[in-house]
Amino acid sequence: MIDAQTLWADIQKIKAEAPLIHNITNYVVMNTTANALLSIGASPVMAHADEEVEELVAIARALVINIGTLSSPWVKSMLKATRAAKKHGIPIILDPVGAGASHLRTETSRKLLSEASQSIIRGNASEIRALFNNESTTKGVDSMHVSDAALDAAVNLSKQYHCTVSVSGAIDIIVQGDNVIRVLNGHPMMPKVTGLGCTASALTGAFAAVNPSAFLAAAHAMVTMGIAGEIAAEQSNGPGTLQLHFLDALYQLRESDIQNRLKVE
Amino acid sequence: MIDAQTLWADIQKIKAEAPLIHNITNYVVMNTTANALLSIGASPVMAHADEEVEELVAIARALVINIGTLSSPWVKSMLKATRAAKKHGIPIILDPVGAGASHLRTETSRKLLSEASQSIIRGNASEIRALFNNESTTKGVDSMHVSDAALDAAVNLSKQYHCTVSVSGAIDIIVQGDNVIRVLNGHPMMPKVTGLGCTASALTGAFAAVNPSAFLAAAHAMVTMGIAGEIAAEQSNGPGTLQLHFLDALYQLRESDIQNRLKVE
Amino acid sequence: MIDAQTLWADIQKIKAEAPLIHNITNYVVMNTTANALLSIGASPVMAHADEEVEELVAIARALVINIGTLSSPWVKSMLKATRAAKKHGIPIILDPVGAGASHLRTETSRKLLSEASQSIIRGNASEIRALFNNESTTKGVDSMHVSDAALDAAVNLSKQYHCTVSVSGAIDIIVQGDNVIRVLNGHPMMPKVTGLGCTASALTGAFAAVNPSAFLAAAHAMVTMGIAGEIAAEQSNGPGTLQLHFLDALYQLRESDIQNRLKVE
Repeated sequence: MIDAQTLWADIQKIKAEAPLIHNITNYVVMNTTANALLSIGASPVMAHADEEVEELVAIARALVINIGTLSSPWVKSMLKATRAAKKHGIPIILDPVGAGASHLRTETSRKLLSEASQSIIRGNASEIRALFNNESTTKGVDSMHVSDAALDAAVNLSKQYHCTVSVSGAIDIIVQGDNVIRVLNGHPMMPKVTGLGCTASALTGAFAAVNPSAFLAAAHAMVTMGIAGEIAAEQSNGPGTLQLHFLDALYQLRESDIQNRLKVE
Repeated sequence: MIDAQTLWADIQKIKAEAPLIHNITNYVVMNTTANALLSIGASPVMAHADEEVEELVAIARALVINIGTLSSPWVKSMLKATRAAKKHGIPIILDPVGAGASHLRTETSRKLLSEASQSIIRGNASEIRALFNNESTTKGVDSMHVSDAALDAAVNLSKQYHCTVSVSGAIDIIVQGDNVIRVLNGHPMMPKVTGLGCTASALTGAFAAVNPSAFLAAAHAMVTMGIAGEIAAEQSNGPGTLQLHFLDALYQLRESDIQNRLKVE
Repeated sequence: MIDAQTLWADIQKIKAEAPLIHNITNYVVMNTTANALLSIGASPVMAHADEEVEELVAIARALVINIGTLSSPWVKSMLKATRAAKKHGIPIILDPVGAGASHLRTETSRKLLSEASQSIIRGNASEIRALFNNESTTKGVDSMHVSDAALDAAVNLSKQYHCTVSVSGAIDIIVQGDNVIRVLNGHPMMPKVTGLGCTASALTGAFAAVNPSAFLAAAHAMVTMGIAGEIAAEQSNGPGTLQLHFLDALYQLRESDIQNRLKVE
């Protein structure tokens, strides 16, 4: 289902078209997320003011919403932007950071999901489970364990909201109804860099801007993350340099890197 | 008009005096902007609360306002700080990030310009054109093309507001009335790092703090950006490492680097 | 009082237990602070919304409050979180960034101190002096001079609030009543990286989460900062690369590094 050639075609399209990706995201990752989008060839815009989100959604090709450091005024803008994106028919990516850790996060995520069918929900296992039910207790935002329970939750969420669910972990799983892609690329040092999950969501937006299949776009993004992470880790002594080499790897990515490293099931 | 010796004297002054630069800037670049100011030898302060901006302007030697992720409470503080800076007679640098992309951004920029004669407006071609008229449609915040239309807009804005206009692009143009300096330094990888334009605005603040000519200060800042970018790019495999080597280059900059690389017209 | 073995035991505990550290901090350093906590082995959460701080404090093992870019809504959440942390009995670390530079900062710091006995106040000399009296005029946030006046202020603050006071500078001083530890580790390039003081506060939170002595935790954090900074500086050409190598050094830190480099009095 995933092959190097199709993925590479998406990357070439991103570089050629430089799609504008509108991010309403958290303070922690704004810089690194914008840099990842620039490195892959997309055009990031970060904007959250109530007064301007509709205008920016109108010229964007994807909307990425990330609730990592949310507060009431931001939630209001997220809802407004989501409605505008639905109206304009552009892909919406929701990263429910920390869902399950507080009522505000879980409820905001659900409100956003009910406001408009999201194209893609992209989170870690704890967050995806928390959106499905309240049994999970998210510990922070960096949980990386993808259990069977997470797959179950992902399948159910995908059916409930008619969307793609992309769960990051040691093995990433991308779910659309009963279809599942497993991405084995990546490196164990990646969770030691803050916000690489958020970067995955932003890149998912870039791929969704050029690929009409949300399912393929989500998978292509996770493979790209994983391969760039592997290349970066091979040159890094720790999470500090990994973060920078990761951006260089995104920028330098070649078709042969994808052909040689692609590991999906 | 621009020579290595005068530019170097400014840099020496920045290092010796460590002028406090008050930044009301966007979330994306706060960290990198502060680091660039520290690397060149200035003292950054980032503060936006309505209750304290006047006190901080009172001890600062330049005010840098950047509307990259603006919202109503921030606009209120930007106006208050601008009035305080006018009262204290310190240079004001306005970076109208994304002007033209939303009414909020264009109108906020105009409000700030009418509140106090800005010393320096520093933006990219789309933004400068958007401030002059509404014909331009800014696509995101990273446009780098400096057209004749931008030069026209810059000259007109400079005359309208009696200020210096500094337009970044493959060739930077710095305009004061009918006087124009063109800076040819820089590297094509620089636009792939988010917020280097914002860094240019912050450094412009540092140079304006030590050089009474806004025109020269703006040009010195753009030359310094360009030369540090060239040095950094020669050591970098992509925008990730470029960002860090750029800070190192600012920190290590020597008079001979400027003598050997300076390219202005 | 400080020995390599006990310090190393704390680091091993942080890595094994990955304590959740709740940070209400400033925009400039959120990314670098989160990365430092991940590199040492802790789990960062950044959250400031009034509606959720109590829930997050309830699952956290330390609360770190940093007023670097404060505004009214954030102050409200800081107070709420402080009360919750007091109720749950977890350590509270206050970094009074820029205290003395504006009334808002000085008064907010005092309000937070009076709300609950802080476990640890961690700032630079100007800030510590400003909290003790109003004679000091803080210039920005990067002052690094630890004078006798600062030691005096630290001892007095420690007695007044029954807490540990940790003052960063060329020589760090950690004070608990009349007990003083001096940490000589560190490198002169460190103040050229924005927010390393804030990182020190965050790491102090991680150590306080695993060590019941606030005094030892504060000292262990400053030694760890200093040693990681030394290792990083030896590999760096400037503050740009120093920032990244610092994270790598935290991640790679070995017991032998501490044994060979530890310099306390």
